[in-house]
Amino acid sequence: MTSVDLESRIAANAARLSADLEAFAAISEPGDGVTRLAYTALERRAHDVFAERMRTLGCVVHTDAAGNTIADLPATEDNGPQSVVGTGSHLDSVAQGGRFDGIAGVVAGMEAAYLAALSPVPRRRRWRFVAFAAEEGARFGQACNGSRMVAGLTTLPDTRRLRDTEGVSMYDAMSEVGLRPDDLAADEWDAAQWHAFVELHVEQGAVLEDAGVPIGIVDSISGSTRLHVAVNGTASHTGATPMHKRRDALVTAASCVLAGDRIAKDSAHHGTRVTVGRLEVSPGAMTTIPGRVEFVVDVRDIDSDRQRTTVEQLAAAYRDAADADGTAIIVDVIADTSPVVLPAVVKDHLAAAAEQHGLGYRLLSSGASHDAQQVNKITPTGMIFVPSAGGLSHVPNEHTDADDLACGVDVLLAALYRLDADE
Amino acid sequence: MTSVDLESRIAANAARLSADLEAFAAISEPGDGVTRLAYTALERRAHDVFAERMRTLGCVVHTDAAGNTIADLPATEDNGPQSVVGTGSHLDSVAQGGRFDGIAGVVAGMEAAYLAALSPVPRRRRWRFVAFAAEEGARFGQACNGSRMVAGLTTLPDTRRLRDTEGVSMYDAMSEVGLRPDDLAADEWDAAQWHAFVELHVEQGAVLEDAGVPIGIVDSISGSTRLHVAVNGTASHTGATPMHKRRDALVTAASCVLAGDRIAKDSAHHGTRVTVGRLEVSPGAMTTIPGRVEFVVDVRDIDSDRQRTTVEQLAAAYRDAADADGTAIIVDVIADTSPVVLPAVVKDHLAAAAEQHGLGYRLLSSGASHDAQQVNKITPTGMIFVPSAGGLSHVPNEHTDADDLACGVDVLLAALYRLDADE
Repeated sequence: MTSVDLESRIAANAARLSADLEAFAAISEPGDGVTRLAYTALERRAHDVFAERMRTLGCVVHTDAAGNTIADLPATEDNGPQSVVGTGSHLDSVAQGGRFDGIAGVVAGMEAAYLAALSPVPRRRRWRFVAFAAEEGARFGQACNGSRMVAGLTTLPDTRRLRDTEGVSMYDAMSEVGLRPDDLAADEWDAAQWHAFVELHVEQGAVLEDAGVPIGIVDSISGSTRLHVAVNGTASHTGATPMHKRRDALVTAASCVLAGDRIAKDSAHHGTRVTVGRLEVSPGAMTTIPGRVEFVVDVRDIDSDRQRTTVEQLAAAYRDAADADGTAIIVDVIADTSPVVLPAVVKDHLAAAAEQHGLGYRLLSSGASHDAQQVNKITPTGMIFVPSAGGLSHVPNEHTDADDLACGVDVLLAALYRLDADE
Repeated sequence: MTSVDLESRIAANAARLSADLEAFAAISEPGDGVTRLAYTALERRAHDVFAERMRTLGCVVHTDAAGNTIADLPATEDNGPQSVVGTGSHLDSVAQGGRFDGIAGVVAGMEAAYLAALSPVPRRRRWRFVAFAAEEGARFGQACNGSRMVAGLTTLPDTRRLRDTEGVSMYDAMSEVGLRPDDLAADEWDAAQWHAFVELHVEQGAVLEDAGVPIGIVDSISGSTRLHVAVNGTASHTGATPMHKRRDALVTAASCVLAGDRIAKDSAHHGTRVTVGRLEVSPGAMTTIPGRVEFVVDVRDIDSDRQRTTVEQLAAAYRDAADADGTAIIVDVIADTSPVVLPAVVKDHLAAAAEQHGLGYRLLSSGASHDAQQVNKITPTGMIFVPSAGGLSHVPNEHTDADDLACGVDVLLAALYRLDADE
């Protein structure tokens, strides 16, 4: 029996995956869905669960300065290449999010490590399983923080600049949960030590479901630019202030929301996604004209140039809206990540791994940002998508069938063996 | 010296008025401006200050079931008419409001009572000074609660239906601060006991300031219809969800905000005022398409028919916006008050009182709702406006010059004497 034949008999277990997802879902703020925000005690508890499991599987586990939990499964051969193959995703969530986004990839790594540790198939390289910290931009505006830190893309000064809506800096939030932002530079990854990385993630869209295909291989990942916009008008009494004397900040903000929707839907922007997901009205009283509105805009694009052009068009449309209403507007870029095309060398292994298991796949691009995008700065990286029911994500009813996830783990494990076998 | 000559020598004192305003402003939640919401312990503390002062001036004071504090200054003559003349306004505020809205009228009553109690000018009738409870709609959506209760317009079942944003019913809020909603019916005012009522209030607009006139006499008061609107879309990931697959509740809500602004500004609606003062986005995360938006619309009009037509036009525009975006929309009327034309008999006395003090005045309509509007259901009621700097109200920098307020008190007191002298 060849090694490839052996591998094909090792199969991920859907019930075990479901139990692991369930255990992580229980670590949440009260309320609908899962709330386990970046750099909170709840996120650390989830990391502890991951660390403990990986130790029992024989991994050497440590937490880096950024809060990423890194579990190394030693090679079974003595004289293999020194470079590591890795997999992983994240354990934090948005507020009232689901139990799959990020967690699916960490749980897939746990299952792959379990199967690999039991398997007689030799491993030439060290395998590294990673739970990245603070992937969601929900708290600090910038996504993929743990992976950006190991890739040297987010550094100590950024942690002092980035703040949550309560005004807490990332530096303070990290320190509060026992992490060491001052030591970030020392924990950046060295490209020379790496061979390749694969992240498994739920699709968060409906391409796979609509196509009836179990496996997605990610071709490219959208860039994302995030804007904070403040509109200042004049608060006053709703009854006593005539329409023509108003400077209503919400009227300007409403024009901005519609301008973004219109720009993203015009024919020149096929593929651009513009969203206002957060908007706050002050003072927020029924009988007071809004004097101030703050909102956050998320611009996604697979085309780097169009991403920048869209941001310029939005800023111009926002200024026009403010001029028309006599309000004042301030637009700040709070985060900016370029699109990434993932390397063919890993994609080819992922395709071969899917074929090995007789699973259909299709190439697709990711509209969401992922840790894989940042890790690709260090080492060739690939991504496996598994189907999301109804394409829903970042909501409590986010769902992926355990059987679909198990298929994804089979492809992940086969891909890790294939990368392990590379010279 | 005639009685009218005597009265003209009694003058309100700006420094005393400022000190009283200052004392009430100190009774507030922390933060910008004054926050002393309806049916809270802070509102009751302000009522206690009023009650205590009125007792020292020789008034008989009680608090009714609705939380209105009622101070009766006895007549100085034994055989005068049994009907009372009254004045008053309210002591609650919006969140982060100013120190004049409502309070100015209560403080004016305190000053008028002080001057009347010292004055040798006889009073044929009992004079009633009222601090109404819960005038602001900021907490429960409906304005003028205390005055509506004594006028029989808001009754026990309403107190169980009206709720604040935390879900607390007005009934529970009232009970919590020691009031007696179960006894409301018994404390309704009897028209037969009343002769007339005058409310002094800050204008909350800029008509008087622009015209350089110290006194406004209110001709009519706008009606107000308040709508609660809920838009339901589908929350999902901002990056992974294509524009054409979205049901973004905030895009629909933005169209609704602009539709209201457009309708109120068109030529058929000269005088209609439409405002969205409160709007909340759920889940409110940067990377999640808004799945639900709730907002509140305040429609004001001096024309009763146009007020109803505007509400119908808004509801139709909202449905169109939701249909275009594939979202669902629910529009509920949470409060509805018709415009009121104030009676000429009181306006004539107010004009004469201003002339008596050599003060210029102009007639104007009120865009804001007032307790006077409700009291007018019981007894002929008038309103005196004093200038608002910059026309600003419901904001921390709401301001009326103490000298302007003193002029208003002079007119108020003269008008009370004139009404007192009526047969």
